Amino acid sequence: MRVLVIGANGKVGKLLIDKLKDSEHVPVAMVRDTNQVPQFEEAGVDTVLGDLEGDFTSAYYGVDAVIFAAGSGPHTGPDKTVLIDQEGAIKSIDLARRFGVQRYILLSSMGADQPDAGPEGMKHYLFAKHRADEHLRNSGLNYTIVRPGGLTNNPGTGKISLDEKLHKFGNISREDVAETLAYLLSVPRAENETFEILEGDTQLEEVLAY
Amino acid sequence: MRVLVIGANGKVGKLLIDKLKDSEHVPVAMVRDTNQVPQFEEAGVDTVLGDLEGDFTSAYYGVDAVIFAAGSGPHTGPDKTVLIDQEGAIKSIDLARRFGVQRYILLSSMGADQPDAGPEGMKHYLFAKHRADEHLRNSGLNYTIVRPGGLTNNPGTGKISLDEKLHKFGNISREDVAETLAYLLSVPRAENETFEILEGDTQLEEVLAY
Repeated sequence: MRVLVIGANGKVGKLLIDKLKDSEHVPVAMVRDTNQVPQFEEAGVDTVLGDLEGDFTSAYYGVDAVIFAAGSGPHTGPDKTVLIDQEGAIKSIDLARRFGVQRYILLSSMGADQPDAGPEGMKHYLFAKHRADEHLRNSGLNYTIVRPGGLTNNPGTGKISLDEKLHKFGNISREDVAETLAYLLSVPRAENETFEILEGDTQLEEVLAY
Repeated sequence: MRVLVIGANGKVGKLLIDKLKDSEHVPVAMVRDTNQVPQFEEAGVDTVLGDLEGDFTSAYYGVDAVIFAAGSGPHTGPDKTVLIDQEGAIKSIDLARRFGVQRYILLSSMGADQPDAGPEGMKHYLFAKHRADEHLRNSGLNYTIVRPGGLTNNPGTGKISLDEKLHKFGNISREDVAETLAYLLSVPRAENETFEILEGDTQLEEVLAY
């Protein structure tokens, strides 16, 4: 499948592009600025320009699947949380419906199921993720929502813990998150499901395999 | 009807309580802090405590209608826009369904139908209002969404301009907004409709009357 990676220039996004390059799938990197293009082009990765705050319809031509790995990040205000994490995701979901995309994977966050129970400064973020998740669930798309715990820059282990609810908080490396997103693309038992993930003991290729 | 006014301590909210006191309806003022109670109690207005960021279920007992006139205001950050204008409204809609409320009027904003077309610094606010509006439309409640232009503190004129789309921007006094909200409670032709309002030439009692 040709897989549009939204947020390809982010930390998880870059790792995800690498994982997809090594897979049966073909990544297409969606980036906002022209100066973000060369790094992908030079690595032989198809790149499209698209701004989540604008119109990114043209990024969808020829796309079979979408992985939304964008986030407004910690250096912008909560207005961007609304515009990127919530509304950017919702627009990307609506476009996926319009283009008949076969598979949509949304990188969400642990805690997005119960935003009100989250830490004070995180609630608006968790609500934004929650609204995007709900929009995807109601979209009719073949979806998977992935909710990691705290993200680290540790090297990936290829092992995770995954369940609908893990009933604890913890960490997971961005590399393992990226590998999980790529892996779940073609796992039938992941379809139309929502999962929490943390670092763990299960080899990724055994996750949801049986 | 007993009408729960959410955001009763706000500028529009206070005016709305006054208008409802002079009407066939009975206002119930929902306020966040105990120190906001006496001003209403002394005026003979029933008051309930309820925090939009917390659990305000108990405010709904014995309520026939709800008017949501709360807003996070210009002095708080966009995180509060999510928590109050969007999520507070959504929670209040869900509670209205749960309690079988007969009528729900939401004070929205002109521009909430097309947030992406709004001014840069307003987009996150317009998106938040948009999500609340959409949630209400899909709620099954008997609703009216009211979208005023720029709010002024001018005295009310009792005359407005109202239509699904007015195709222009302009101002309207908070007093006329409050009077419109109170008026539309019992106007059958306002049910399950969305209106923009501005200052205008039509006497309120003739609006949607024929």
